[in-house]
Amino acid sequence: MNKKNVLVAQSGGPTSAINASLAGVLKATIDSDNYDRCYGAINGVLGVLSENYLDLTDKAKEDSDFIKLLNQTPAMYLGSCRFKLPEYRDDDSSYSFIFSQFRKLNIGAFFYIGGNDSMDTVLKLSNYAREIGSDVKIIGVPKTIDNDLCNTDHTPGFGSAAKYIASSLLEIAHDTFIYAVKSVTIVEIMGRDAGWLTAASALARNGYSTAPHLIYLPEVPFDKEKFISDVRHELSKRNNVIIAVSEGIRDKDGNYITSSKAMADTFGHQQLSGAGKALEFLVKENIDVKVRSVEINVLQRCAAHLASKTDLDESFAQGKKAVALSEEGQTGCMVVLKRISNAPYQVEYSYAQIKDIANEAKSVPVEWINREENDITEEFIEYLRPLIVGEAEHYYENGIPKYLDISHLNQKH
Amino acid sequence: MNKKNVLVAQSGGPTSAINASLAGVLKATIDSDNYDRCYGAINGVLGVLSENYLDLTDKAKEDSDFIKLLNQTPAMYLGSCRFKLPEYRDDDSSYSFIFSQFRKLNIGAFFYIGGNDSMDTVLKLSNYAREIGSDVKIIGVPKTIDNDLCNTDHTPGFGSAAKYIASSLLEIAHDTFIYAVKSVTIVEIMGRDAGWLTAASALARNGYSTAPHLIYLPEVPFDKEKFISDVRHELSKRNNVIIAVSEGIRDKDGNYITSSKAMADTFGHQQLSGAGKALEFLVKENIDVKVRSVEINVLQRCAAHLASKTDLDESFAQGKKAVALSEEGQTGCMVVLKRISNAPYQVEYSYAQIKDIANEAKSVPVEWINREENDITEEFIEYLRPLIVGEAEHYYENGIPKYLDISHLNQKH
Repeated sequence: MNKKNVLVAQSGGPTSAINASLAGVLKATIDSDNYDRCYGAINGVLGVLSENYLDLTDKAKEDSDFIKLLNQTPAMYLGSCRFKLPEYRDDDSSYSFIFSQFRKLNIGAFFYIGGNDSMDTVLKLSNYAREIGSDVKIIGVPKTIDNDLCNTDHTPGFGSAAKYIASSLLEIAHDTFIYAVKSVTIVEIMGRDAGWLTAASALARNGYSTAPHLIYLPEVPFDKEKFISDVRHELSKRNNVIIAVSEGIRDKDGNYITSSKAMADTFGHQQLSGAGKALEFLVKENIDVKVRSVEINVLQRCAAHLASKTDLDESFAQGKKAVALSEEGQTGCMVVLKRISNAPYQVEYSYAQIKDIANEAKSVPVEWINREENDITEEFIEYLRPLIVGEAEHYYENGIPKYLDISHLNQKH
Repeated sequence: MNKKNVLVAQSGGPTSAINASLAGVLKATIDSDNYDRCYGAINGVLGVLSENYLDLTDKAKEDSDFIKLLNQTPAMYLGSCRFKLPEYRDDDSSYSFIFSQFRKLNIGAFFYIGGNDSMDTVLKLSNYAREIGSDVKIIGVPKTIDNDLCNTDHTPGFGSAAKYIASSLLEIAHDTFIYAVKSVTIVEIMGRDAGWLTAASALARNGYSTAPHLIYLPEVPFDKEKFISDVRHELSKRNNVIIAVSEGIRDKDGNYITSSKAMADTFGHQQLSGAGKALEFLVKENIDVKVRSVEINVLQRCAAHLASKTDLDESFAQGKKAVALSEEGQTGCMVVLKRISNAPYQVEYSYAQIKDIANEAKSVPVEWINREENDITEEFIEYLRPLIVGEAEHYYENGIPKYLDISHLNQKH
């Protein structure tokens, strides 16, 4: 019986749920009649290029806690990379090496867990596979806190980041309302081009707390004068005003509202910081009120102790679905989630062609932003609500979360 | 039977445990044979000066969830203030008003929950009480994430902030180790003059992760050249270096290492920001390596979802102790905690004279910092360990933490 093996890797920016997808791939592989071993490549596709693998099979079969802990460990258990393959028509050396690795390891399917840039790798590898007549199935498993992958209702990692944002906004509200002096607090949230995560701050409104009082997304042009006018209006209604703003807000000419010089990462994305700081200065210059800004920074994407159970369950399920799709003979596609209903909340998993997804980005629909462009609609809130529901079971040891040992990463090269 | 009433208020900066102390005062009051009602003053002593009270008695007796939720709600349920009374010999008008309020409400004991500046109010009020021959007991209940109150082993609020710092450092380590490129991450932690909370980052070291690799406290002069040399040394040992630094680090001349202009708050404390940012620039100028800084900001003091059960239990107990001390006739004192043993961890509660505590601050003992002044000793780690143990039970509703309604705060004035 010549069973094939599976190769899986992770890529792009980390989330609290990307290991749940890996756990799903791993579980489905060891349970499958069609596959034998599950290999993980370290640091994404770079691991294939440098023949750096971890055999996950025995760990998964023999240690009953491994998959459970993997499910809850933040960031990439297999490490990550921000690396795009060249066009194979320009230079196919890396491609022929990768496929020789597939042959060497007897790989039947390669699963790449990542965001829209990572899906570019899935597109290129599956196109190349078709060119050379290779039978290896190349399938993408979605991942991103930004929720900007096309053709899927929402992405693994988003719900947990949203839960963290909403919970933190509520706690910041409690922290802010204690003084009987007027104040403005600006909270800067991740979201390079899409406002999905910033919008999730609205879920902090729980009946007694109406914060955030203003929400600014990057999908609509940011107007500084309108902003100051909005803030004055809110200050006429309450002492303490809390504002959620995306890191990617920009003016009508497309310039980012930032106080830092933008720097590019390897994918060509601008590293932004400073929208919150810039608005703090703007308020200070225009309104006589105590003002501070809070940049939530990396914590919103790696705070696995506050992961959404809904998110982790869906992330795990999508990892499993990828394996099932490969067994059905699918390739050049990405696992997607369809929402069947909202109340009760029900979803199903399917797939979409990778060419429609790679390098595309899904913005917040403009009709989900209010007319004043400083809040989101009730319809948007209803879309978001189910995604943050449920608390994942967590284990603590000596007062800190118990995660999987990742000392195979951070090695000196 | 002429039972007296109790008045309680909260003051200074918020923590995740200050409401647990309030809950302790409230519980002990309603269980006491000596007291009738428990009033809370809104926004600290300002509430007494403006006759702004909340009667907590019936809520506590009739709603079984009230004290439970109070125990877990972050920041001040009664609001806070940053206000110091003048010397009564200069101007006793506020004092005579306060004591007339005590008479009006039939107050037998006044409990003030706060840090060392708040203990100044306890000192002044108890001295004045003695001057005028008043029988009202004035007792301080400690509170601060900085752990810098004298004559007590550690303070309510510190353990929860420490648990948050340690857990976040571990998650930041997971987030950081994923890329196979050299990097430096600087994490800036609260601690205006005392390094207790920054030191707690060492509790993130869990066997597989050794981060943070360097720790800088404000108790020792910060040397920029030595810092760069330390960073180079760590980079020779590993790819990804994580550094914990207190917001209050300063050079040998006493100048803060910051990139922001310092601004003073009402207590005369400098509002610091930028040590992390300043060091990020310093590394960028001196070493060819990817570098970023994370400012943990307010989240470290209001993230009640990750409160330490040990901290909450001790905070509650100290609230109860304050009431017991008043019943024994004590006044002009603060509740303190003594550590009887470390393994097993055991404590007991007592009191100390307020004159030895108010306006004083406890620094980290220099012998608990290593000789290289870039880490802490094993003895210090043993001191810290028990304080973050245990996870408080938390309730969630619609995916966010369930806390007490604080809409009686944030009212327009």
